[in-house]
Amino acid sequence: MPVVPLPALIIEPLVRRALLEDLGRAGDITSDAIAPADKMVRCELAARQEGVVAGLDLAALAFRLIDPTIRFAPALTDGAPVAKGATIATVVGPARGVLTAERTALNFVSRLSGVATATASLSRAVAHTKARIVCTRKTTPLLRAVEKHAVRAGGGANHRFGLDDAALIKDNHVAIAGSVAEAIRRVRAHVGHLIKIEVEVDTLAQLDEALAERADAILLDNMSLDDLREGVVAIGGRAVSEASGRVTLETAPAIAETGVDLISVGWLTHSAPILDIGLDAVA
Amino acid sequence: MPVVPLPALIIEPLVRRALLEDLGRAGDITSDAIAPADKMVRCELAARQEGVVAGLDLAALAFRLIDPTIRFAPALTDGAPVAKGATIATVVGPARGVLTAERTALNFVSRLSGVATATASLSRAVAHTKARIVCTRKTTPLLRAVEKHAVRAGGGANHRFGLDDAALIKDNHVAIAGSVAEAIRRVRAHVGHLIKIEVEVDTLAQLDEALAERADAILLDNMSLDDLREGVVAIGGRAVSEASGRVTLETAPAIAETGVDLISVGWLTHSAPILDIGLDAVA
Amino acid sequence: MPVVPLPALIIEPLVRRALLEDLGRAGDITSDAIAPADKMVRCELAARQEGVVAGLDLAALAFRLIDPTIRFAPALTDGAPVAKGATIATVVGPARGVLTAERTALNFVSRLSGVATATASLSRAVAHTKARIVCTRKTTPLLRAVEKHAVRAGGGANHRFGLDDAALIKDNHVAIAGSVAEAIRRVRAHVGHLIKIEVEVDTLAQLDEALAERADAILLDNMSLDDLREGVVAIGGRAVSEASGRVTLETAPAIAETGVDLISVGWLTHSAPILDIGLDAVA
Amino acid sequence: MPVVPLPALIIEPLVRRALLEDLGRAGDITSDAIAPADKMVRCELAARQEGVVAGLDLAALAFRLIDPTIRFAPALTDGAPVAKGATIATVVGPARGVLTAERTALNFVSRLSGVATATASLSRAVAHTKARIVCTRKTTPLLRAVEKHAVRAGGGANHRFGLDDAALIKDNHVAIAGSVAEAIRRVRAHVGHLIKIEVEVDTLAQLDEALAERADAILLDNMSLDDLREGVVAIGGRAVSEASGRVTLETAPAIAETGVDLISVGWLTHSAPILDIGLDAVA
Amino acid sequence: MPVVPLPALIIEPLVRRALLEDLGRAGDITSDAIAPADKMVRCELAARQEGVVAGLDLAALAFRLIDPTIRFAPALTDGAPVAKGATIATVVGPARGVLTAERTALNFVSRLSGVATATASLSRAVAHTKARIVCTRKTTPLLRAVEKHAVRAGGGANHRFGLDDAALIKDNHVAIAGSVAEAIRRVRAHVGHLIKIEVEVDTLAQLDEALAERADAILLDNMSLDDLREGVVAIGGRAVSEASGRVTLETAPAIAETGVDLISVGWLTHSAPILDIGLDAVA
Amino acid sequence: MPVVPLPALIIEPLVRRALLEDLGRAGDITSDAIAPADKMVRCELAARQEGVVAGLDLAALAFRLIDPTIRFAPALTDGAPVAKGATIATVVGPARGVLTAERTALNFVSRLSGVATATASLSRAVAHTKARIVCTRKTTPLLRAVEKHAVRAGGGANHRFGLDDAALIKDNHVAIAGSVAEAIRRVRAHVGHLIKIEVEVDTLAQLDEALAERADAILLDNMSLDDLREGVVAIGGRAVSEASGRVTLETAPAIAETGVDLISVGWLTHSAPILDIGLDAVA
Repeated sequence: MPVVPLPALIIEPLVRRALLEDLGRAGDITSDAIAPADKMVRCELAARQEGVVAGLDLAALAFRLIDPTIRFAPALTDGAPVAKGATIATVVGPARGVLTAERTALNFVSRLSGVATATASLSRAVAHTKARIVCTRKTTPLLRAVEKHAVRAGGGANHRFGLDDAALIKDNHVAIAGSVAEAIRRVRAHVGHLIKIEVEVDTLAQLDEALAERADAILLDNMSLDDLREGVVAIGGRAVSEASGRVTLETAPAIAETGVDLISVGWLTHSAPILDIGLDAVA
Repeated sequence: MPVVPLPALIIEPLVRRALLEDLGRAGDITSDAIAPADKMVRCELAARQEGVVAGLDLAALAFRLIDPTIRFAPALTDGAPVAKGATIATVVGPARGVLTAERTALNFVSRLSGVATATASLSRAVAHTKARIVCTRKTTPLLRAVEKHAVRAGGGANHRFGLDDAALIKDNHVAIAGSVAEAIRRVRAHVGHLIKIEVEVDTLAQLDEALAERADAILLDNMSLDDLREGVVAIGGRAVSEASGRVTLETAPAIAETGVDLISVGWLTHSAPILDIGLDAVA
Repeated sequence: MPVVPLPALIIEPLVRRALLEDLGRAGDITSDAIAPADKMVRCELAARQEGVVAGLDLAALAFRLIDPTIRFAPALTDGAPVAKGATIATVVGPARGVLTAERTALNFVSRLSGVATATASLSRAVAHTKARIVCTRKTTPLLRAVEKHAVRAGGGANHRFGLDDAALIKDNHVAIAGSVAEAIRRVRAHVGHLIKIEVEVDTLAQLDEALAERADAILLDNMSLDDLREGVVAIGGRAVSEASGRVTLETAPAIAETGVDLISVGWLTHSAPILDIGLDAVA
Repeated sequence: MPVVPLPALIIEPLVRRALLEDLGRAGDITSDAIAPADKMVRCELAARQEGVVAGLDLAALAFRLIDPTIRFAPALTDGAPVAKGATIATVVGPARGVLTAERTALNFVSRLSGVATATASLSRAVAHTKARIVCTRKTTPLLRAVEKHAVRAGGGANHRFGLDDAALIKDNHVAIAGSVAEAIRRVRAHVGHLIKIEVEVDTLAQLDEALAERADAILLDNMSLDDLREGVVAIGGRAVSEASGRVTLETAPAIAETGVDLISVGWLTHSAPILDIGLDAVA
Repeated sequence: MPVVPLPALIIEPLVRRALLEDLGRAGDITSDAIAPADKMVRCELAARQEGVVAGLDLAALAFRLIDPTIRFAPALTDGAPVAKGATIATVVGPARGVLTAERTALNFVSRLSGVATATASLSRAVAHTKARIVCTRKTTPLLRAVEKHAVRAGGGANHRFGLDDAALIKDNHVAIAGSVAEAIRRVRAHVGHLIKIEVEVDTLAQLDEALAERADAILLDNMSLDDLREGVVAIGGRAVSEASGRVTLETAPAIAETGVDLISVGWLTHSAPILDIGLDAVA
Repeated sequence: MPVVPLPALIIEPLVRRALLEDLGRAGDITSDAIAPADKMVRCELAARQEGVVAGLDLAALAFRLIDPTIRFAPALTDGAPVAKGATIATVVGPARGVLTAERTALNFVSRLSGVATATASLSRAVAHTKARIVCTRKTTPLLRAVEKHAVRAGGGANHRFGLDDAALIKDNHVAIAGSVAEAIRRVRAHVGHLIKIEVEVDTLAQLDEALAERADAILLDNMSLDDLREGVVAIGGRAVSEASGRVTLETAPAIAETGVDLISVGWLTHSAPILDIGLDAVA
């Protein structure tokens, strides 16, 4: 689904560092040696698989940062479905620059499109329910902001972005606090009024405690379908319900049918394969 | 296989930035609220799947950068096989710091162990031949150095690290130069004496040109097994032979049996799933 | 009140840059010229005014980054009240280093203690009510995290830390959306389940709309005391109520007595004077 | 008074970091949700108080870095007086970008205008004398260059910018050196020919020593008006005379009338309240 | 000789930091004071000595980063010979900006032209042979990429760029490994297939070992002309031959005449004097 | 002569970046391959030429940043003379780390010792006069602070460090202002009271103007010995006198004998050859 672009201030440092990682100290010695400075090329970014695209702004930036005269014309926007073989964008400019930026542009767009595509697949699998797919903090180090964006592009929603924008009380926290209720109380006393509190619960007893303390959201982790159903009933709309654990394309529909609001999936960001995208020269 | 650790100067900026990405502006508000400053914990980094570990130095650094009093004691070293359920490292220290660093440490070590495990699987699949598995430049942006390290930990070898440490002439380059031979000549005139030249060829005719110009390595891309065999014979040890394209655990043995020296695989670094690793509190 | 320290990863870059800003290219030419390398000094960080201290970790770091052999022994912790003339910390070490770091250490600790002191004064003024003092995003550029910390040290609470950790719908947003209700609906459709939504309202009609759309918090901006009282009644505990506008030590008690949950004050961070703190050599 | 703008190379990193501090990982989620991408706004930066403006280049940059299509048209330049209610600049562009950059732009311009306004007030208070108001190194960490600029905009002059561009011998230095004369001699032997030496003196005897050693400037710290007058006479134009300590709008005229050349004031940069400036949508 | 420009991504951070090093906290106070904002100047970058120019992109960037309205029009390109007195580039723009950037621009272009000129002199001295002049890793810290570029501009070739893009086995390595052969074997087992291996040898026996292990290049360090000649014969084209040690304009021809492929010279980058270049105002 | 060390905060970023420039993405592949992790070495940093050492802190830091277990024991301090063959420091630690850091350490210390040595030579040449040798802003980009330090180590003095710590009025400035006197007046009106003003003069008439306006220092550029003598007499101690232009070991004594206070020399920092220093393994 169409998504609001990320600010250039956030994505530019990532693209810049990724290009420098590839350029090293001497740049693209192969293209520099072979392509005359005035040799122009026209290429197409094309999908080799069906999927959902994301990260086009990063690809555009990769070409622009290498050579501002390169024209990158997207045919799609982040969140759009793309058929196998379809053109995603056209790239026209000096061959040296286009070839130099190619791999970095593709590394971003294929990875983020992979995240978007996996999210879209799961979202379709639960589309007959009210459940939404959400991602986790199991993201690629340094790429969290753009992977969260790719999840949105795939039709998913975002869980918290870090340790500081929401409180998530897990089993270790409960163990230290002594009880779910005490953990929630400690957090509430510590955080500002715009911070929500979610609690991971293992049992119905813990769930009751969390609801009694007015947790904003309940994470039902690794529960059976029966327990999930029971949990959803117990919550009764008083908090957001989230299921997690062993979510696959096959298991997602049944999990969603338990009535949970959210299904969180780590592998969207830690293990989704890329969407195969290439850059083809055109006549 | 045991590998030489990467310099701290290279990995520390990555871990530092990844931690800051998770800390945001306010840090771990949940653990800060719940855990008293003097509460200590003892945890184990444990494999939830069989595999090969990599990235332990980054995990260690994540804990140390958050709190230098945390003790991270590895039970294994990068490149070691790990059984399901086995302990990878012990972490002892203040609960706040351990819980704060946990996700960043796990994000690094599970991802890099995923790369190492995939590499090890493929390497085992071709172990009856002389072929070695190598990675490509299709790495995660900003993580190339550590992913290349993980490939070595998994028993694979590294292709070039960037655009500047070796020349790789591809189809677009050949099209610009007019011929394989001319492309090689242009590169040789441009680069220093310690730069090797590899050429991607599509046909036996191109292969002959490349050998005539004394290319150091030949990339036989997306060829049939018959063509690979023929290519290897044609090369006759005069250059390193590398096969790429559609390499899976199933196809790798046959490709390796064609006699190629190297099999390069993009998905080791762009699509390998993580190795599931968790942090468990112990009594 | 005692507060959890900020992670070193967050404060160290600030202290490092502040020191470099003062060192310039040649360092402390006066102290380098005058003090022999082995000359030791013993100093005390002393309050010249009564107040609440904050920022001691930054002061400690200023000395340590200049010379790790300097011993900084705090007599208090962030959030502690300090009497005029009382010692805040003792600093012992080479004179060159102590004199070099002095101004940077003082600039941090006096400014942050100023924020904490202002917050504590206002908090005392409303201590007979349930209202809490909160800060805003009107912070010193680049110092938001540490100023928010100082507000906590002064007994206040934190509003959102940035544009991304909570939604705050203001008049301009309502104008664009067409109504308060539509604005809330757009935000809810856009953000994750852990993001709270606060709405600034000017009229009771808008307030009703906001409550009907289940806003998490209501900002009653620049309202008369009567309107505030009416607003609090209308909210009836269904959302957090926040008052803002023209808050001073004199007006705060009456505002708090209207029953609002929070009183937000921009000048805590944009205009609070420093707490006068000096570094005195002791025999 | 009109001042030369600071180089973009110096201010851009400040504005960039301040914006990133506010954007966090996800950007302005409220404006992104509510404002369509093509919604344009026209706003005015308006003074809510009388004062002197400074920091317009930083405000302009805040908008431009968020969205280069935003037009920021200043009606004034740094150093200009502004009446209550007057327009400082007009901002036209996409609503999303304007609302996203608003707070950062205001945080800079209101703070720096506060410094300029305080400086102008003090300068007016001593305008009947030859004394000039100067700032100190008691600046906001990381903002020294722009605060010094704001002081110039307010009609003040700058003291040294750091520890390295001039020598300032204080009481601690004298104590280590053994005497004012010895301290000056040590500094002169250490520094280059373009470094001036200022000495803080407590007594007339020290003043004589400083003059005998040809100090370039004398800081008469916390002296009575009588002592200041006596000091100025003793100096007799042989060095620049500077008074400091307990300078307020009320005390400044009498201090200036003692004949000192400079009056240095820490609170211009450490405790001046902001100038209240807002951004108003216009039809 | 004409050379491919370095990517802006690589040179811009260098120029930016160099300008900031010169600007300090307050910028060019002399030019700001003297030149009105609208005063324009026209200047020429002129060679005061005959030589070969390099670094023009860095000079252009110095002016552009200070003021994008300055027009820098190069009359030559990197690698071009320049006569004494000849114009290298024309600079037109606001006087303030031109004067502010002047020294940084000159510091880069005179230094890099010095490297290019030294390289060109040595290259001419061996032009009657097939030997090429190459640089080493004895470069100015932080300027390696641009100095290597200057060597290419002077007609020389580049040795490895760092510790990671080729293996160079020196005496200390041989001592640790126990023999030349063992050292080569260890390296070959460790590095990827695109890494070349060069070995420094002291004796003919070591040379034989290196050739037997198929070293890609042999460094004949500090050998007599007779030994060099013997070494070249022994190598017989099986590896690249490189001579180093005591290379001067006087000794280079005889060294080149021994038949070596390469002559490496540290002083090109560590001790070459600058090419004297100035910026002259023109009517 | 012994000099005060530079703050670690200033030199560490330089050493860190220089090491990363050499390490690239993969580190020291040669030493990693050959040296076992537990292999220890003992080396000596030894002068291959007579000279004056500088930069030992940077060398020490290079080893420490690569491996904190390496012990670097200096036998000398910056500013000390060193005989040919003498030991400068001892380095003991793991072979891998020592060999990895070697080149970066040597690049810093040999370059800075070259600057110190050149400065010391010139200083000795004028030791029979009161003239002191000073450096200029013609320094290596990014290394100004450490090169200025090296000049002090060699017994020289520092001119201004940048565009902002002193005013230097040159011919272009005079041309814009219309006269020397007007240029000085503009600068004095613009800068703070701790900024000195130096003026470059071509004629005695200009010199008179500069003295009449009480310039702090006079730069007599490219004058004949007779003109210099006349200039010194005209100045008569009312300002610091500085000679520049065509200063060599041969011309310096006569220039100094004209009575000037300072002789400034660009080539100390832009063209001085390195002092040859090596790292030798010891039994």
